[in-house]
Amino acid sequence: MPTSTAPKKAKTPAAPKAKIIKSAPQPPVVDLSMVDIQGQIRVVIERVSPELDGGRFPIKAVPGDIITVEADIFADGHDYVSARLLYRAPHEKTWQEAPLHKLENDRWTGQFAVLQMGRYQYTLEAWVDHIGSWQHELDLKVRDGQRVTSELLAGAVLAEGMGHRAGGNVADQTELYRVAGLFRDEAAYDEAVTIALGDQFHHWAETYPERQHPTRYAQNLGVEVDRERAGFSTWYCLFPRSASRELENGAPKHGTFKDVEKLLPRLAGMGFDVLYLPPIHPIGTAHRKGKNNSVTCLPDEPGVPYGIGSAEGGHDAIHSELGTVEEFKHLIEISKNYGIEVAMDLAIQCSPDHPWATQHPEWFKKRPDGSIQYAENPPKKYQDIYPVYFETEDWQNLWQELKRVLLVWASWGVRIVRVDNPHTKPFGFWEWVIAEVKKEYPDMIFLSEAFTRPKVMQQLAKLGYAHSYTYYTWRTTKAEITEYMTELTAGEMRHYFRPNFWPTTHDINPYILQSGHEAQFLIRYFLAATLSSNYGIYGPSFELMEHVPNPGKEEYMNSEKYEIKHWDWDRTNKLTYLITLTNRIRRENAALQQTNNLTFCRIDDDQVLAYMKTTGNNRLLIIVNLDAYNRRAGMVQIPLWQLGIGGDQPYTVHDLLTGAQYTWKGEWNYVELDPYMLPMHLFRIEV
Amino acid sequence: MPTSTAPKKAKTPAAPKAKIIKSAPQPPVVDLSMVDIQGQIRVVIERVSPELDGGRFPIKAVPGDIITVEADIFADGHDYVSARLLYRAPHEKTWQEAPLHKLENDRWTGQFAVLQMGRYQYTLEAWVDHIGSWQHELDLKVRDGQRVTSELLAGAVLAEGMGHRAGGNVADQTELYRVAGLFRDEAAYDEAVTIALGDQFHHWAETYPERQHPTRYAQNLGVEVDRERAGFSTWYCLFPRSASRELENGAPKHGTFKDVEKLLPRLAGMGFDVLYLPPIHPIGTAHRKGKNNSVTCLPDEPGVPYGIGSAEGGHDAIHSELGTVEEFKHLIEISKNYGIEVAMDLAIQCSPDHPWATQHPEWFKKRPDGSIQYAENPPKKYQDIYPVYFETEDWQNLWQELKRVLLVWASWGVRIVRVDNPHTKPFGFWEWVIAEVKKEYPDMIFLSEAFTRPKVMQQLAKLGYAHSYTYYTWRTTKAEITEYMTELTAGEMRHYFRPNFWPTTHDINPYILQSGHEAQFLIRYFLAATLSSNYGIYGPSFELMEHVPNPGKEEYMNSEKYEIKHWDWDRTNKLTYLITLTNRIRRENAALQQTNNLTFCRIDDDQVLAYMKTTGNNRLLIIVNLDAYNRRAGMVQIPLWQLGIGGDQPYTVHDLLTGAQYTWKGEWNYVELDPYMLPMHLFRIEV
Repeated sequence: MPTSTAPKKAKTPAAPKAKIIKSAPQPPVVDLSMVDIQGQIRVVIERVSPELDGGRFPIKAVPGDIITVEADIFADGHDYVSARLLYRAPHEKTWQEAPLHKLENDRWTGQFAVLQMGRYQYTLEAWVDHIGSWQHELDLKVRDGQRVTSELLAGAVLAEGMGHRAGGNVADQTELYRVAGLFRDEAAYDEAVTIALGDQFHHWAETYPERQHPTRYAQNLGVEVDRERAGFSTWYCLFPRSASRELENGAPKHGTFKDVEKLLPRLAGMGFDVLYLPPIHPIGTAHRKGKNNSVTCLPDEPGVPYGIGSAEGGHDAIHSELGTVEEFKHLIEISKNYGIEVAMDLAIQCSPDHPWATQHPEWFKKRPDGSIQYAENPPKKYQDIYPVYFETEDWQNLWQELKRVLLVWASWGVRIVRVDNPHTKPFGFWEWVIAEVKKEYPDMIFLSEAFTRPKVMQQLAKLGYAHSYTYYTWRTTKAEITEYMTELTAGEMRHYFRPNFWPTTHDINPYILQSGHEAQFLIRYFLAATLSSNYGIYGPSFELMEHVPNPGKEEYMNSEKYEIKHWDWDRTNKLTYLITLTNRIRRENAALQQTNNLTFCRIDDDQVLAYMKTTGNNRLLIIVNLDAYNRRAGMVQIPLWQLGIGGDQPYTVHDLLTGAQYTWKGEWNYVELDPYMLPMHLFRIEV
Repeated sequence: MPTSTAPKKAKTPAAPKAKIIKSAPQPPVVDLSMVDIQGQIRVVIERVSPELDGGRFPIKAVPGDIITVEADIFADGHDYVSARLLYRAPHEKTWQEAPLHKLENDRWTGQFAVLQMGRYQYTLEAWVDHIGSWQHELDLKVRDGQRVTSELLAGAVLAEGMGHRAGGNVADQTELYRVAGLFRDEAAYDEAVTIALGDQFHHWAETYPERQHPTRYAQNLGVEVDRERAGFSTWYCLFPRSASRELENGAPKHGTFKDVEKLLPRLAGMGFDVLYLPPIHPIGTAHRKGKNNSVTCLPDEPGVPYGIGSAEGGHDAIHSELGTVEEFKHLIEISKNYGIEVAMDLAIQCSPDHPWATQHPEWFKKRPDGSIQYAENPPKKYQDIYPVYFETEDWQNLWQELKRVLLVWASWGVRIVRVDNPHTKPFGFWEWVIAEVKKEYPDMIFLSEAFTRPKVMQQLAKLGYAHSYTYYTWRTTKAEITEYMTELTAGEMRHYFRPNFWPTTHDINPYILQSGHEAQFLIRYFLAATLSSNYGIYGPSFELMEHVPNPGKEEYMNSEKYEIKHWDWDRTNKLTYLITLTNRIRRENAALQQTNNLTFCRIDDDQVLAYMKTTGNNRLLIIVNLDAYNRRAGMVQIPLWQLGIGGDQPYTVHDLLTGAQYTWKGEWNYVELDPYMLPMHLFRIEV
């Protein structure tokens, strides 16, 4: 027997000097750093998905959505593990539980449904399943022909434990106590083994688990559940000042909310359910811009609605030529009869005439000469606009005032706000103000009009925007669309970034539509309306196929931003027909009311795009010829293995646009699209 | 001018009842939830890499390593952003700074070197760069021909601020104050503009940044810096009881530490620097196992070293037939003269004779009859082993005792511990005990002998193991090796999981080596030694090409675990020659002293593997014929674009194994390997 010598380092505890068996037991010394350790916990839960930035942000959903959660869950050793998904509805303290099932490689998955608006939470709990482990090992020993008397005695303790936890269920409790007795009764050995290995015992183990030393995932993760329209909406943008059908002295007459009301039947007939109005506040006169953004403005020119604020008031006032607050509220009310919601536009910037410029000069940046700094995008200058200076020392009052503005709008009945250039205001402000407004109006929906760098757009979506503008406007080739849709619907963005697709806006006249070619408008419209459940058009410019650019730029010549338009609101054409039909199909087919339910199909033509949208039994196959000038044909591959259709089984593809029905068989089928006829199919697959 | 009406909801603050311009300014109402908001912060830092599980675990490194950090960093708006990487050495309070540079898409990167053992920390800080933004905008305006007098006045304030911060540097301070004066001097306009746009001003901006309202990343992330041998080590495992060269009555004589000392010249000569010994503690006699794991044991059989503990003592005692503690310490000291460290084996399990069984019966699980539960892997039973029951209520004293054992070993001079089956003990214990031991012995290295599921092996590495056993032993085809090495060296595991490759162990006689075919041993050895900077062999079994299996199993017939072997320690063969040579090459070539510096090369043969290992100018091209029975040839692609070698430039590949030198040109070159000659090239690329 060796003797240990004392250690050299003073720090080291003394090693035993004599035979350890003779030495007194070591006195218990509990290390201070042990205080926070729960040493009997054995299960690890990690790599939870979805989880945004370590739980910093919630994922998004709408009522009725099923949230699928995955995690790595494992323990040391060979014992079985049990795990539960915990979730709770908004403002609930009590957690509900859903089962978690093992996939491969220690990955587990479970689901729960969100049913109401507000912030759901979810987390996970797991523990070593001693009962399941015992049953499993017993089974192996019995199969090996071993006598398991001793194991049954251990099982009796487990059965009693379950009986104790069965409390409320007297029948189960009685039965479990009886089983415990049997396990201890050598004479009932065979019956005891049968019961111990049976399904009923397994079921009890699931129902009355021991849950000893459970591991609780460190985070409560969030699901922000918006109302249904956040998931499925059809937007129409118009300038109310161009809503009049009349002329005045041969010139367009300034439209009013009353004129807008007269357009509601048309909009509802075409299938729109959100009417978004650019700013409707008083417009400043200082440095007011003229037609085509001219720095000189004629006396009768109306100015830019984004030059907000005058002696009439600012962001909580209404431009008097449009009507009164009462008339605006009337428009909101009447619109509801048409199933349409009115959305306002929040542009946080001021005309030099805005009341804030005099009441709160500290909210604006000063130039060295003491004057307020106007907007610049060097070398360009925008003397008609004062940007708000968010780095002001008085930022708290600024934030409160902006929140107050939104609450005023909400008090008028507004529940959808499109925010102009949110990416030029601090992220922290948006996170705060959206949360504050949703505390009082949880049904509020914010759309981020940020056309900027990807990370910035993503951040805005993460911190509260229900909808986001996208790069769709510039994604035109098959490769671009496929790649972008994959990023939006198959990567992490699918959890928090709800795209809202616009073929054009009042700011953007994209190169691809500057030809004015009808088929191009049909294609760009149809892709937006079927790739994304949320989309919008800037009308009636879009459906009337306005396309003349400010030369070389993606802007409109004679843009409505700078002048009042006199539109022919009664004109119909192939595009208005397609819009009306597509919007009806969207309402009637659940598969078009979600965005992430997208799968691309193979088709052997670089300019033909094919995709499936599937929700339950509603299975749509959409094929679009992206070549607006030439007939294209190809063989498209239908993923029969996903649809549960056999290779020899005929099935019908029913074109909901034309009514045509084709009987197909097998994976690969022929399609042909002539852009001068109709460059798309919208097939419903019917078996 | 419209008048707003009072809101309907009582909750909503009162909307203005009259024209806002006439109403009194709103009293400042600071929302309670604003208290913790720093509203002027504008920069976001996220998606930091490396970052393990939200910062829960440190990454790993050795002194001299360069840590490359990336993050998404962006602000609202169009202002420039500045960012710094902050890091600090172990126990330092002060942060040092390294620059961060912009990559694409708001991704930034920076680096710092770790120079000493211990836990480094790093984090990031970023802020809106008002000076840089000002300089950039000034440049655009000047190029546009604008007069920038007002902008220069703003610049004067910025220059004064820099002058103030230049404090310590009187020359810079004086100059900056002079520049501020110039900026205000209309007469010096041209000079002022030149200075404002110059490199010196830009340099000042970098040196004396404003750092107003900076964003600090929420986490301090860790780098656990182990000593050099954690990154590069060459292990040899032997059973000291088989170390004697003598026979006793025709049977192997029980070896001792003295016998091991006599083997040191051989081991050092072959190039090993870690000598790992399976358990050297007293071996129990209760239920002792005989030869080939027989449940009956003859009186003179030595037992299994993993049946730890007898009346002689337990984990802190030494098996007396091997020698005394003093003799073991002598072995450790003498080994150092050969550049060899002695590693011990921690197997937390007991023979029924272990002192703990009587002193701490609560550390073991009881069966219903009150006896201690022996180990089982149902239906198999291991009556000679008591597993320790980590779910004991007395876990704190159990943990302390195990820590004490490790500190006793450390006091003997042991700084490397191989842990047997760590995956059957709780994760929390390992995290605690490794941290506790490293508090006193930061140079301690733990090797995890966990051959189990991937997530479990990863977890052990994350929570403190410096080295990990791997699946290498079973990765034998080109596809398997390529995929596995990619997972280890190109995915997240590269940050925390240090593989230690073993072609065989005393527990594993893999199918691929059961043929005993020499070329197969050469291949499996050479792959381990060149794919991983840490590897080991179980000798002399391995180099003597022992291969007879327990039929049908990956175990050895007549395993050394159950009996004393009498080895021919003097035998040499092609394999011992290759080992000696390869280990010398490993010491002389830095590229073989790291694992993650691996790139696979294309070669048009499914059984030939080609890879580059590159560290600085040390560039190795390794080609292995995985077919141990047939000559293979193919064209290998050298990544000249990475090596900076032109397509027309001749270069030499120098085979360090044979001394052969070839002059190659261009990307694709011919190689041919005959397994009966030597199935590998180890080329150094020399230009």
